[in-house]
Amino acid sequence: MKELIKKIKDSIPLSKEAEEYLFSISNERTVPKGSVLIRQGRPVDMVFFVTDGCLRSFFIDRHGKEHTLHFAIRNNWISDYIAIHSNESATLTVECLTESSIIEFDTEKIYGMLTMFPELEPFQRANLERLFISLQKRIINQLHLSAAERYDLFLEEYPDVEQHIPNYHIASYLGITQESLSRIRANKSRT
Amino acid sequence: MKELIKKIKDSIPLSKEAEEYLFSISNERTVPKGSVLIRQGRPVDMVFFVTDGCLRSFFIDRHGKEHTLHFAIRNNWISDYIAIHSNESATLTVECLTESSIIEFDTEKIYGMLTMFPELEPFQRANLERLFISLQKRIINQLHLSAAERYDLFLEEYPDVEQHIPNYHIASYLGITQESLSRIRANKSRT
Repeated sequence: MKELIKKIKDSIPLSKEAEEYLFSISNERTVPKGSVLIRQGRPVDMVFFVTDGCLRSFFIDRHGKEHTLHFAIRNNWISDYIAIHSNESATLTVECLTESSIIEFDTEKIYGMLTMFPELEPFQRANLERLFISLQKRIINQLHLSAAERYDLFLEEYPDVEQHIPNYHIASYLGITQESLSRIRANKSRT
Repeated sequence: MKELIKKIKDSIPLSKEAEEYLFSISNERTVPKGSVLIRQGRPVDMVFFVTDGCLRSFFIDRHGKEHTLHFAIRNNWISDYIAIHSNESATLTVECLTESSIIEFDTEKIYGMLTMFPELEPFQRANLERLFISLQKRIINQLHLSAAERYDLFLEEYPDVEQHIPNYHIASYLGITQESLSRIRANKSRT
């Protein structure tokens, strides 16, 4: 919890009461590689803060093909926010790509904190703004950059992820085939 | 301003003071078709609430090609949020596709309201959550739906927009060529 409390305190003043409450609703645990924390089609009642390891959220289309939406590493949050905010069952699956340490929170309890402790609102707003901006940039990049350029941005954004995760997850995040990704990598190593 | 005040009051209780302040910093005006409200590369110091008409935000790539990020119709906000939240000059251009009625706000003043009137935080949070979810859905759709399926979703999302705007803007929003869009439309009208 130390990392999460620090992350909040770096952004806003946090009262002792809010800190204690956050602690009381948290559940830290280590989850093995391959664990599925959220499964497409099921209810979603948890959000996860990653303190170590790597997780991904992905969508399985009607042909059974996986499309990676997001990778979460240390100090990132991950869940199915579409399901949470639309009050629907999960659109996404969230799985651990490596053994990971996470802090899990019940969604009702953690979002209820914003009403109990309005001092947290600017922290949550800053989080949402950052997420909103990163998704806008990803859409713009998807529209105008080549796959090779998007791969370079991926390496910048997730510098330590590549070595831990199979190629097909990266390809599915970039929206390209594994063959295209291999070609891009081969071209990079030649230059 | 009535529409905007109503939109806020539908979501949260709004004090008389906050309403008066919001009114005092607003500037309602009608802008002709073709007006450019934000230009890529320039500073961004305004956000716009649309009360009538249609605007779009787009990105011009290094080859001069335009990529549409967003259409804004009645009751939508539009600006370059990447620039505002990153404190950079505009990445996007915002232009009026039809004559439009807008309410413009200075970004510092309107975001400053969240500190002056913390009662507004839940309203802004709900806005950001909705935007965040819609962008996540768009990324997932871009990854797994065909262009024809994405065009159908566009028609659902913007039912009145299509008749007002040229094909190439819709094609650039969908990330396809105008020829592909014409083919999709021809197929639809045959079925």
